[in-house]
Amino acid sequence: MKPKRKALVIVNTGNGKGKTTAALGLLLRAWGRGMRVCMLQFIKTSTGNYGENRAARKLSIELIPLGKGFTWLSKDIKQDKALARRCWALAKEKLYSGEYDVVILDELTYTLTYGWLPTDEVLETLRGRPDGVHVVITGRGAPQELIEFADLVTEMREVKHPYKQGVKAQPGIEF
Amino acid sequence: MKPKRKALVIVNTGNGKGKTTAALGLLLRAWGRGMRVCMLQFIKTSTGNYGENRAARKLSIELIPLGKGFTWLSKDIKQDKALARRCWALAKEKLYSGEYDVVILDELTYTLTYGWLPTDEVLETLRGRPDGVHVVITGRGAPQELIEFADLVTEMREVKHPYKQGVKAQPGIEF
Repeated sequence: MKPKRKALVIVNTGNGKGKTTAALGLLLRAWGRGMRVCMLQFIKTSTGNYGENRAARKLSIELIPLGKGFTWLSKDIKQDKALARRCWALAKEKLYSGEYDVVILDELTYTLTYGWLPTDEVLETLRGRPDGVHVVITGRGAPQELIEFADLVTEMREVKHPYKQGVKAQPGIEF
Repeated sequence: MKPKRKALVIVNTGNGKGKTTAALGLLLRAWGRGMRVCMLQFIKTSTGNYGENRAARKLSIELIPLGKGFTWLSKDIKQDKALARRCWALAKEKLYSGEYDVVILDELTYTLTYGWLPTDEVLETLRGRPDGVHVVITGRGAPQELIEFADLVTEMREVKHPYKQGVKAQPGIEF
């Protein structure tokens, strides 16, 4: 088969570190080549001021935390679903806008595994996106349908983690 | 045990994508927090003009490709060893300079697995570095001694790769 170019759907999953971090690296690399990039963070709260948020502001890269109101142990699934739907509408808008070459959907998998968004609807939206839009999806436990749909899937597997030796997460390194 | 802060040695290894990319993401995140960062690329050639090199230039981040002269299938192990030693001297200089909070040693593992540098000497240098210098090491096949020495080790495992479907590597996404 002749090698071809194709906008990719990339999935970084698994329980190890580096899923979001690798997405940020890809964003930097693409930005370095003058590509138009944006990153939607499905879980991070909109008041977050992490290393990546600060970097994005310095670079005028659109990095949008959407997670306000999400809770990891939800008490109101209906409310979570409604919020997820609004977030997904924004993601769809970005994907279909023609304004980006790379759209990162950070921690999207949780909206699927928690049942806030139907996986088939998400795949349908991804399938119908305009040509040339690369998509990066991160998060643990990527559903099998997403893995089958994606072009490039990497599992970040934890081999050794400093939390277990009593070292806490550090600014600039892990967030 | 009380949580503590400690400069980490982070290793991204495995056969999957995302080892260097996650190191770049960490670099971006640290840079976003005003930390002083540099990246030495042990294999990439000094004439490379990849997305990350372009981005680093735009950001005035020190990103130094050292790999000129390295060949993946070496015909002259002596020459490779001499070059690896010069590269390692520069790495040591950066690690001990007090000028960086984060030093990335991209694709360093190959210098170990190819026998160009002795692992125990590399570990000795890392062990003796000044307090507060985080180190990120990437590359396939990290030696067991390095894994034991490191604080945080992630294996990037290939689940699915587009090359296998005849899609070639793309600028901004994979380099």
